[in-house]
Amino acid sequence: MRKSSYIENMDEWKNSFRFYHKVSVRFSETDMFGHLNNTVPFTYFEEARIEFLKENGLMDAWLQRENDSIPVVADLQCDFLAQVFFGEEVLIHVKVQSIGNSSADIHYMGKKRDGKIVFTGRGAMVQISKSTGRPVPWSLIDKQKLIHGLEKESMAGA
Amino acid sequence: MRKSSYIENMDEWKNSFRFYHKVSVRFSETDMFGHLNNTVPFTYFEEARIEFLKENGLMDAWLQRENDSIPVVADLQCDFLAQVFFGEEVLIHVKVQSIGNSSADIHYMGKKRDGKIVFTGRGAMVQISKSTGRPVPWSLIDKQKLIHGLEKESMAGA
Amino acid sequence: MRKSSYIENMDEWKNSFRFYHKVSVRFSETDMFGHLNNTVPFTYFEEARIEFLKENGLMDAWLQRENDSIPVVADLQCDFLAQVFFGEEVLIHVKVQSIGNSSADIHYMGKKRDGKIVFTGRGAMVQISKSTGRPVPWSLIDKQKLIHGLEKESMAGA
Amino acid sequence: MRKSSYIENMDEWKNSFRFYHKVSVRFSETDMFGHLNNTVPFTYFEEARIEFLKENGLMDAWLQRENDSIPVVADLQCDFLAQVFFGEEVLIHVKVQSIGNSSADIHYMGKKRDGKIVFTGRGAMVQISKSTGRPVPWSLIDKQKLIHGLEKESMAGA
Repeated sequence: MRKSSYIENMDEWKNSFRFYHKVSVRFSETDMFGHLNNTVPFTYFEEARIEFLKENGLMDAWLQRENDSIPVVADLQCDFLAQVFFGEEVLIHVKVQSIGNSSADIHYMGKKRDGKIVFTGRGAMVQISKSTGRPVPWSLIDKQKLIHGLEKESMAGA
Repeated sequence: MRKSSYIENMDEWKNSFRFYHKVSVRFSETDMFGHLNNTVPFTYFEEARIEFLKENGLMDAWLQRENDSIPVVADLQCDFLAQVFFGEEVLIHVKVQSIGNSSADIHYMGKKRDGKIVFTGRGAMVQISKSTGRPVPWSLIDKQKLIHGLEKESMAGA
Repeated sequence: MRKSSYIENMDEWKNSFRFYHKVSVRFSETDMFGHLNNTVPFTYFEEARIEFLKENGLMDAWLQRENDSIPVVADLQCDFLAQVFFGEEVLIHVKVQSIGNSSADIHYMGKKRDGKIVFTGRGAMVQISKSTGRPVPWSLIDKQKLIHGLEKESMAGA
Repeated sequence: MRKSSYIENMDEWKNSFRFYHKVSVRFSETDMFGHLNNTVPFTYFEEARIEFLKENGLMDAWLQRENDSIPVVADLQCDFLAQVFFGEEVLIHVKVQSIGNSSADIHYMGKKRDGKIVFTGRGAMVQISKSTGRPVPWSLIDKQKLIHGLEKESMAGA
C-alpha cells in the first residue's frame, strides 16, 4: 500500500482510531466514470469530524450564532487507495493526531466492512474569530477535550 | 413536447424570457448513468435566480447579515425534457411570472445553444423574517423592481 | 398547512406511507442563511427512492452496466413547509402513488422525529433505454413489484 | 503567507501558471458559517483541471465510453489561505508540475481578481484501465501533450 507522508507506521496508524462514522455512497455522489467522485470524501471527512467533535463535547458552542469563535479548516488532503462504488458502506474513522495553540491536526481513514482501506486523509482545524478572522487559542477546557481524544488514541497505541 | 401545468402556451412562454445565465455541466455533476444528475438543475435554478435578482437590484439587502428579511424558496419543480451530458452548456432562463404580497412565482427554462429545451421549472419565492419565520410583505420599491421584471416580460409577450 | 396539488387529503396521504429512510443534515448542506439549502431535499429524495426500490427488488438490474434499461426522473417537485437546520434528522418517506406503462409516480414526505412534516414532494420515474432514449415498458415482474408497493399503500389507506 | 510542502519558492511558483478557469461562488456552496464550504475547492480543481486537459487535447479519448483508459485522482490536497464568500470570483490556475510513467502531478492556485491567493493545492492524476484498475502508461503523444504543458511552464519560469 502506498504510504502517505503523514503516516509513519501504517499498522500503528490504522489501529489507533477509536471513533468512526458510517456513510453510504449516494447515487448523486457517483460520476460518469461509475465510481465515487473524488470531491466527495472531503464531505465525508467533514461529516465524520463533526460527529467526532460532538461526541467530545466540542461542537455546541461553535454552533451558537452569538459565539464569535468558529473552527475552520486550514488544509485538507486525501489519498485515494481504491475505487469506491455506489451503495458501498464506508466507515470514516477520525482521530486527533496532535494539538497546537489554536489548532489541531485531524486524521481520517475510510475503511470498508471487510477491512479494506479505501482512502486516508488529514487536515488541520483552526479556531478563529468570526469578527477578526484571527486565531483564537483553545480554552483550557477545550484543550482537555481534545487531549482526552488524543489520550484515548495514545493509550490505544500503547 | 410534454406540457407542464405551469405552462399555458409553450410558444408564448418560451419567448417571454428576457434574462439568462449560462452554466456548463461539471464532471462532478454527472452520475454513473453518464448524464447530469437530476438534483443539479435545482442548483442551476438557484444560481440563475440570484443573478436575475442581482440584475434587478434585489439581492444586496438580503445578503447583509444585519438585515432581518431573507428570501426563501416555498416550492420548486422541474420537468426534465432531455438528457444533459458532461461539458454541455445550458442557458438557464429566468423570469417573474406573478407577484404576491410577500411572494413571487419564478419560472425557469434550460436551453442549449441549438435552441433545444432540456428542462423547464418554476418555484415560489417568499420573503420571510429570520427572527420570526413569518412572511414579510414586499416594500413598494422591491415590488416595483419585481414588477419591472414582470413588465419587461409582458411587453415582450405583447 | 399549505396543501399541494398532488395531495388530495392530507391525513390520508400522510398515513399511507410504509417506508422511510433516515437522513441527517450535513454541515455542507446548509447555506449562509443558516438552514438546509433548498436544492438538497432532492438529493434526499433520490437516496430514499433508491433504498425503497432496493427493498422492492427493483434496483439490481438497473445497476448492471450491461443492462440497457435505466430509470430516469421525468419530473420532480418539492414543497418546503418548514426550515430545516444542521444536524437535524429527517425521515424521508417514499411510496408509489400510481403506475403507468413505463412510468411510476413516486411521492415523498420529509418528517422529523416529533412528527412535524418539513417538506413533501413527488416525481415521475420512467424506465428508458440507454441506447435509444425511448421508454421501456415495465416487465410483468417489475410491475408486480411496483404494484406490491402500491398495494401495501392501498391496504394501509383502507 | 503559510508555505506548503509542495511549494519551494512561492514567487516562482505563483508566476509559473499559464492557464486559469474562472468560477463564481454559488449560494449553495456556502455553509452556515457564511463562507465557501471547505469541500468545494476540490470541485473547482476538478472543473479547472478538465478545462486545462481539454485545452491540451487530452480529454477527448477519456470521455469515450468505449475507451478503456480513464484518468483518476490518486491524491488531492488544498491549503485554505483566506475565507471566500458568496458571489466572489476566483480564478483557478492549473499547471502540470511533473510527469511520471502513467501519472502527472497537477498544481492549483485560486486567486481573486485583486491578486489575493485564497487557496493553493496539488494532486496526482493517474491513467488507469477501467477493466483491470491497473495503471496505463502515457502514450508518447499524451506525454508530449503533457510535456508541452510542462514546457510552457518551464519557459515561463525562465
